[in-house]
Amino acid sequence: MSIYLHDIPLDQARSRLDQALQNARLWGILGAEEILLDEFAQGRVLSEPVWARISSPHYHASAMDGFAVRSVDTAGAMPNSPVALEIDRQAAYVDTGDLLPEWSDAVIPIENVEPLDETGQVSPNARQPTAIRIRAAVTPWSHVRSMGEDIVATQLVLPAGHLLRPVDLGAIAACGHDRVKVCRHPRVAILPTGTELVPVGAPVKAGDIIEYNSVMLAAQVNAWGGVATRFPITPDDFEQIRTQVRKAARDHDLVLLNAGSSAGSEDFSAQVVESLGTLLVHGVAVRPGHPVIIGILHGDELAEKQVPIFGVPGYPVSAAMTGEIFVEPLLARWQGRRPAEPQVVKAALTRKVTSPAGDDDYMRVAAGWVGERLLAAPLSRGAGVITSLVRADGIAILPRGSQGASAGEEIEVRLYRSPRELERTIFAIGSHDITLDLMAQFLAARNRRLASANVGSLGGLIAIRRGEAHLAGSHLLDPQSGEYNLSYIRQYLPGVAVKVIALVGRTQGLLVPRGNPKRLRSLHDLARADVSFVNRQRGAGTRVLLDYTLDREGISKTDIQGYGQEEYTHLAVAAAVSSGRADCGLGIAAAAQALDLDFIALFDERYDLVIPQTYYTDQLLAPLLGLLTSPDFRQAVAQLPGYDTEVMGTVIADIE
Amino acid sequence: MSIYLHDIPLDQARSRLDQALQNARLWGILGAEEILLDEFAQGRVLSEPVWARISSPHYHASAMDGFAVRSVDTAGAMPNSPVALEIDRQAAYVDTGDLLPEWSDAVIPIENVEPLDETGQVSPNARQPTAIRIRAAVTPWSHVRSMGEDIVATQLVLPAGHLLRPVDLGAIAACGHDRVKVCRHPRVAILPTGTELVPVGAPVKAGDIIEYNSVMLAAQVNAWGGVATRFPITPDDFEQIRTQVRKAARDHDLVLLNAGSSAGSEDFSAQVVESLGTLLVHGVAVRPGHPVIIGILHGDELAEKQVPIFGVPGYPVSAAMTGEIFVEPLLARWQGRRPAEPQVVKAALTRKVTSPAGDDDYMRVAAGWVGERLLAAPLSRGAGVITSLVRADGIAILPRGSQGASAGEEIEVRLYRSPRELERTIFAIGSHDITLDLMAQFLAARNRRLASANVGSLGGLIAIRRGEAHLAGSHLLDPQSGEYNLSYIRQYLPGVAVKVIALVGRTQGLLVPRGNPKRLRSLHDLARADVSFVNRQRGAGTRVLLDYTLDREGISKTDIQGYGQEEYTHLAVAAAVSSGRADCGLGIAAAAQALDLDFIALFDERYDLVIPQTYYTDQLLAPLLGLLTSPDFRQAVAQLPGYDTEVMGTVIADIE
Repeated sequence: MSIYLHDIPLDQARSRLDQALQNARLWGILGAEEILLDEFAQGRVLSEPVWARISSPHYHASAMDGFAVRSVDTAGAMPNSPVALEIDRQAAYVDTGDLLPEWSDAVIPIENVEPLDETGQVSPNARQPTAIRIRAAVTPWSHVRSMGEDIVATQLVLPAGHLLRPVDLGAIAACGHDRVKVCRHPRVAILPTGTELVPVGAPVKAGDIIEYNSVMLAAQVNAWGGVATRFPITPDDFEQIRTQVRKAARDHDLVLLNAGSSAGSEDFSAQVVESLGTLLVHGVAVRPGHPVIIGILHGDELAEKQVPIFGVPGYPVSAAMTGEIFVEPLLARWQGRRPAEPQVVKAALTRKVTSPAGDDDYMRVAAGWVGERLLAAPLSRGAGVITSLVRADGIAILPRGSQGASAGEEIEVRLYRSPRELERTIFAIGSHDITLDLMAQFLAARNRRLASANVGSLGGLIAIRRGEAHLAGSHLLDPQSGEYNLSYIRQYLPGVAVKVIALVGRTQGLLVPRGNPKRLRSLHDLARADVSFVNRQRGAGTRVLLDYTLDREGISKTDIQGYGQEEYTHLAVAAAVSSGRADCGLGIAAAAQALDLDFIALFDERYDLVIPQTYYTDQLLAPLLGLLTSPDFRQAVAQLPGYDTEVMGTVIADIE
Repeated sequence: MSIYLHDIPLDQARSRLDQALQNARLWGILGAEEILLDEFAQGRVLSEPVWARISSPHYHASAMDGFAVRSVDTAGAMPNSPVALEIDRQAAYVDTGDLLPEWSDAVIPIENVEPLDETGQVSPNARQPTAIRIRAAVTPWSHVRSMGEDIVATQLVLPAGHLLRPVDLGAIAACGHDRVKVCRHPRVAILPTGTELVPVGAPVKAGDIIEYNSVMLAAQVNAWGGVATRFPITPDDFEQIRTQVRKAARDHDLVLLNAGSSAGSEDFSAQVVESLGTLLVHGVAVRPGHPVIIGILHGDELAEKQVPIFGVPGYPVSAAMTGEIFVEPLLARWQGRRPAEPQVVKAALTRKVTSPAGDDDYMRVAAGWVGERLLAAPLSRGAGVITSLVRADGIAILPRGSQGASAGEEIEVRLYRSPRELERTIFAIGSHDITLDLMAQFLAARNRRLASANVGSLGGLIAIRRGEAHLAGSHLLDPQSGEYNLSYIRQYLPGVAVKVIALVGRTQGLLVPRGNPKRLRSLHDLARADVSFVNRQRGAGTRVLLDYTLDREGISKTDIQGYGQEEYTHLAVAAAVSSGRADCGLGIAAAAQALDLDFIALFDERYDLVIPQTYYTDQLLAPLLGLLTSPDFRQAVAQLPGYDTEVMGTVIADIE
């Protein structure tokens, strides 16, 4: 059987699904159930309107602690001409909420009466006054909560489709209900398939893929009001997958079949759907996520039942986005509520992005305010990079027909966070250092988010010039002066007032596998024919340091195998060495320790923070600057290998 | 023992509490627990940072289905000069996610290769090609997800205090964890007290108060990440309450003692707190909610343990606000996360409000866009009116020191809904009719919210003039012409272009108790000495009708007992009659039926919708106008007694 994967536009895929759901009578709510009106009704959705059964209050109630009276009896009472009312016949003590005696039509608050004893004397603490004296008349129904003040019987209290909040439960109880009819939870089966998958927590060897998509999808389903069942991992075998899908369809309202939705040799999802029902869609023109399958399972032992099935792509970002794009709206519909509506803001794109013209491209972005501008910085576009979703503040959709967007262009961002969170975000763009991770952790406890983009030292200075960062980490050595950063700042930030603050001193050197098998000693060894190298990108301080030293020592770049192979962070360089992709790389000691590599120290350097003066005095950055003198933070940094915190916080330059 | 209730400002109350929490070492997270990394970890808060244990991918993985190759072997391949690579030695088939063979450093996607059979011929479906032919060179590491592309071991993945979302679970699993350390749920005991309370679902008699505050508070606690225990109702008895509080303190982190927090004869909360610990605050200058108690329970069998206790006021709005103001921030703190941050918008106040200068006044408002202005309409200020919170779109705080705000003033509103929901809100201000409740229900299913304020017909026209409503319901009889609404529109809306659309014909008459015990026949009976009446407010169409008829028939208003007693809706009039507060009132048949009253038909009238032309053509109102011709809606209205749907949708006037 041949498999066709033919991407169709998103709206077409949606309308095919909608049509099939309508035909299958799966278009409205799935069903209703009556549940107790207790705290667990919260978060459920009303399947029918709530009409008041009784009024609230359901009787005339005193609104104060005081005395129930007849308002006519109080007529004429004045400060200088008090009126006495006889207890029982003309006045009766009532607590707040008490039923008003039938003969009374008003309440006088206790603080406005003078209790009298049997002798007619004022007796403030009288337990049983025989009368009360008042010095002001009251109008009818004053200090009374009259019947129906809040809710009148038969009134509409809440419409069907309403998501129940705590106060709603109060109102429903107040108007005489002790049960409530709600939409039932959709049951969703999640089937992970793939011979290469291992469950979370199992030991992994190279080639094993940790099966966490089902955890993520189940959490999404539960968050959206469904009840998820995670099935065990099924290997890539048509018959086994088919058996599991049939089993899942019997007891569930929706089946999510994870991976196998593409057109590879072991992608059976489309065949399975075709063999058990109708394949509606195979491929949707949306990135990430395009190998999505949509189908309806029917016939066979399902009898009259029809069960939608989604073939969910295997890459985690694609899987999560398939959840957001297809599963959430369906679960919302089945529960009688509207799909989630993210808040949309306009933000300026920090760099040019390209996008395939045929697809709706869901680009993850980090967003934050730098000065007066809300910026959106594109994150990794890779469908396998789950951290791009973790770090995303929102999604910008580059629609079909567009080929991307240019730097500075205003784009719409659907937020994952509240706009107020964005106001607490510090944008650090520039060189990466492991202390920035520590800083992010410390700042999280101080009501700030540190969003750092690693573009190298020079990239950071350029971001500052463009007004796209609150600060830049930089360690650019000036070969002439031997000084760090200042000459570059003069060159790249002319006329920009900045503070340059030392963050740390640190040691750069060669990262090599444990035991240093190639016996490397200095940069001269990089030119050896048996040694491969992994480099940092152009503009990185480490790259500047390398190039400067190679020139000085007369080592030819073309002799270095892997000189053209670039990574963007110290840790990525360490990972390349650790995986055997290269024999060595230049980086910091902490990166070596992190991945259990050996480290051959070569240079000491200073790593500075470059901060525009306007942000230096901004409240936003105050907690960050505070860290530089915090003993806790210093100590945490000092515990990293190869770091010197002596210089931390020193003002290197104050450029007005 | 005397009880003092002395309101202190909110910030002072907060700082006393905070100080006491710090002294009791209850200032940080309550504790941590290690849980499985599965879908149920969602919504929990990390108690410590997550650092990557392994990289993701943890090996070099193929990013495509295709052939793993050595990039050097592909050098020179061109469209017209293909290169053949031998299977096994130079090319190996890999699925997406497979480990790259050690000798390879790139992948060629399957669609870019020509499989060759043993004779060297292209054989597209060859199951076991012996070689592949390619027509383009590839660079090293193309179509490879290199180790650490997503996450590098030791990197910070998520900071402590982070609320776990589905994608976070994926990232944590990806970097080698199968458990996660989270803050434990605070345990909160909720103790309803009050001899007058009856549980939800029990039969009620006059004077009984349905105990739903505990349901509401428990739902709040659960929504805020706590685990609530609802205690049974304790009567107003010092010893019994004390015993329950001691019991609750043993197994919980926080006690909410509901009601009895004021200074009435049966308010024992303050005494109980004093007898079991320290009373910190009795009374906070905030409305609604001021009789709040804050204390710390300690000593006795609690040993070293200290347990905060809140005395929560009994009025439901006060109780719910006490939850928001005090309980939510505390539960957030104990779980290591920030308190909820409602979105704040600026809106124009629709009418003047006054506020006690000594209090922070939490005013509930309905909010929505009318034209270009976001409006905030104050809802009932009563602490007993739970529907004011149900209907609230947000809260505006009138701060201590202010005595209110004037009409049109721009105020800050903390939203309970997303701003996008406000854009779907139709503001109907004017006369109340029960069909508006039905309309609200029908519109909820059509993606619109109908927020209706009942200010009478004339009030509605004035709201239209002020640009504060999308439409007004009106049934104002012109005594001269016998026509409805038009003369009033000419008078009150000069120069305003409106459409006047008939909604329903309906019957007005006297609402009287079942069996008509006072044998009322006409308006003349209102002047009888043994008959009491309940009126509608000035400007209500029903009031206009009444006054017109009284004048015509020569009946003196001063002869009518209760003429000055005003209600704002038909249902409220019916409730007054039903409760015996009055013998009769003028209203519509549906209101009589709703509260099981008898109805003496007197007049037929028309009820119109007055809609400015600009909104008549607005998309916002399209679903509402659609209802007027919807058979379902007409049928639902026709089922109400005393309604004639014949005229529904007829354009009465088109005033340009």
